Amino acid sequence: MTTTADSIYEPLTEETAIQLARRLNLFDAEADLVCREIGDGNLNLVFHVTEPTAGKGVIIKQALPYVRIIGEGWPLTLERARMESEALRIFARYAPEYVPEVYYTDNDYAITVMEDLSHLTIVRTGLAEGAIYPLLSTHIGQYMARTLYGTSDYALGAEARRELALQFHNPELCKITENFVFTYPLIDHESNVVEEGLRPLAEQIWRDAQLLREGARLKRHFMISAEALLHGDLHTGSIFASETETRVIDPEFAFYGPMGYDIGLFIANTLLSAFARSEHSREELLAHVTNVWDVFAAEFTALWQENNQEPLADAAGYLDDELLRIFQDAIGYAGSEMMRRVIGLAHARDIEAISDKDRRLHIKSSAALLARDLIVNRSHYKRAPQIVEALRQADRNEPILHS
Amino acid sequence: MTTTADSIYEPLTEETAIQLARRLNLFDAEADLVCREIGDGNLNLVFHVTEPTAGKGVIIKQALPYVRIIGEGWPLTLERARMESEALRIFARYAPEYVPEVYYTDNDYAITVMEDLSHLTIVRTGLAEGAIYPLLSTHIGQYMARTLYGTSDYALGAEARRELALQFHNPELCKITENFVFTYPLIDHESNVVEEGLRPLAEQIWRDAQLLREGARLKRHFMISAEALLHGDLHTGSIFASETETRVIDPEFAFYGPMGYDIGLFIANTLLSAFARSEHSREELLAHVTNVWDVFAAEFTALWQENNQEPLADAAGYLDDELLRIFQDAIGYAGSEMMRRVIGLAHARDIEAISDKDRRLHIKSSAALLARDLIVNRSHYKRAPQIVEALRQADRNEPILHS
Repeated sequence: MTTTADSIYEPLTEETAIQLARRLNLFDAEADLVCREIGDGNLNLVFHVTEPTAGKGVIIKQALPYVRIIGEGWPLTLERARMESEALRIFARYAPEYVPEVYYTDNDYAITVMEDLSHLTIVRTGLAEGAIYPLLSTHIGQYMARTLYGTSDYALGAEARRELALQFHNPELCKITENFVFTYPLIDHESNVVEEGLRPLAEQIWRDAQLLREGARLKRHFMISAEALLHGDLHTGSIFASETETRVIDPEFAFYGPMGYDIGLFIANTLLSAFARSEHSREELLAHVTNVWDVFAAEFTALWQENNQEPLADAAGYLDDELLRIFQDAIGYAGSEMMRRVIGLAHARDIEAISDKDRRLHIKSSAALLARDLIVNRSHYKRAPQIVEALRQADRNEPILHS
Repeated sequence: MTTTADSIYEPLTEETAIQLARRLNLFDAEADLVCREIGDGNLNLVFHVTEPTAGKGVIIKQALPYVRIIGEGWPLTLERARMESEALRIFARYAPEYVPEVYYTDNDYAITVMEDLSHLTIVRTGLAEGAIYPLLSTHIGQYMARTLYGTSDYALGAEARRELALQFHNPELCKITENFVFTYPLIDHESNVVEEGLRPLAEQIWRDAQLLREGARLKRHFMISAEALLHGDLHTGSIFASETETRVIDPEFAFYGPMGYDIGLFIANTLLSAFARSEHSREELLAHVTNVWDVFAAEFTALWQENNQEPLADAAGYLDDELLRIFQDAIGYAGSEMMRRVIGLAHARDIEAISDKDRRLHIKSSAALLARDLIVNRSHYKRAPQIVEALRQADRNEPILHS
């Protein structure tokens, strides 16, 4: 699935990106265009083509056939560009206000041309700078309910869902998640990045039999549950927002998986941003954590009642069972994600940016202890406020108790 | 996916079946061949082509583009012939001694030519006539462990498993199971066949909120869990056996689903045959029920330890968790299958054949009560002998208690 020597693929330059934008008639024929490569990821080129005098722009994203930070030695499928643009089109069916519009795709060149969202900021960055995004959790709760419900058996019926799932065969990117989120952080793997003072805790984690066992079960469930079309990497770096607007980008990890995974990733990364803040400025972020679940559950329930292909869906108590199962999946996956952000390869930048070493280590160890509880004791979580209560206990170095 | 007007498909006759066998050089050029259509199913033609003087034969199976019992008005995909032959080839990789050898397939004509097993008898029929098949549960336990483990992430790794699963996109036949096993028996559906004296119990079942709720959860798990390549219809009518030999046939329902489904179907149909027998001749069949699980678990464990692609598989307690989960899935699916054999469309022939009406009704109501307990209380089952104990309690009209 990776590029081959005789493929026609070649990477764009700022110049050829402008030529492409012109060819697609995305600007007036005579427009003065400028282009800047703004990708900060490892996997893609991102060109921002603008017509400054008109205040117009587009984004041209191109997948690279290797992981940029490591170099050409680590090839990676170009198929992920197709996954991303296909997923954006599917998500736009259910939640058009929460994804960028796709104007054009070219699978040979692994190119997606889409809406310019440069009036928004990346939520991870904004949260680190103290932004609140008052509508963030409401929008993300709605986005998740609509895309996850909309692509499930409940909305589509099993035949159409099975058909759609065939399009999202994405084994290489699933493997990255399986390794870097679920496996490596739980074992003493060379890819883990463990800050010196955290080493004793990391070693305790790697010897924790119960954690390993429950982590393995969560991984297994992730691998075999074709429940809904997931974004697959829904951390706060995959969300653009302002005070009034929210857009989810970069679904190149899209595949059919368990609904709780998307929810858990959003919760985990919001919790990490909360940890990184001083205690009194955490509250808005913790409110996002409880609100995102409340909005998800309410919207999911409304969609369930409005259009449901499952003849047994009306069974008394069954919707409650489903919501609790999705919630507890989300709790577990939030734990897996937090753990990898503390001792895996890809860390939370806002926590790493804390210069006070004692405070940074305290936050990391609190986050790791919370992550452990979310994984091991996920069946004890029944309501979203328990997550916030658990964070406070972890932050006070208290054992996490569930009333 | 169903046949179209311009496809080249046409049904074989006894004459053209012989011509095909000759063309494939399955017999000597000069051999005198005879052919008999022996299909007793609804969905296929089955030709038994033999050379009586040499004692040789082959089976030529051809899928019909409609359900025979209902007529041409109910079209059904011919793809299922490809599913069946592909699945037989995959299963032969892991358990060659337990499946018929496939000699030839033609997907346009939906034909599979395979080993003649006419020296064996269909287990359902044999059990009804008092046969024991002393090795049946050992063989089926091994067959299931090898095929289910062999096609799982554990043996193949997730990438290869995801790739293989693409070949077994089988939505039409999955839908038949979803409807006729999981949905219709739990609601008052026109397709249900409820014997007159059983009507009050059936109506009680259809009002049973807890049963509906747990039945819905089992159905959901069946639909979304791409765990292993299942046979998909592993009742005792899909098994040929003798005292020494066992072969599993007819995997046209093959798809990636939860391992417990195959196990549950075998258990349910063996329990139904046990119910149909007089009390003192049940014991061998009940021993098959406990033994099939013991053999499955032992073989699964051996395979797990021998070749496991999952880096977290060694987590203490994780294999036990997996086996318990598979066991409880099997318990639930055994319940779903028993229920549909009593009040759904396709009944257990050995029970229907009982002429004493009171005895027949007692057996059906005992089986329905056992089925309910298997579905609703599946998490109370931890060991296979509990199944046998529950059957005895149901048969004595006692409430089913789990110690």
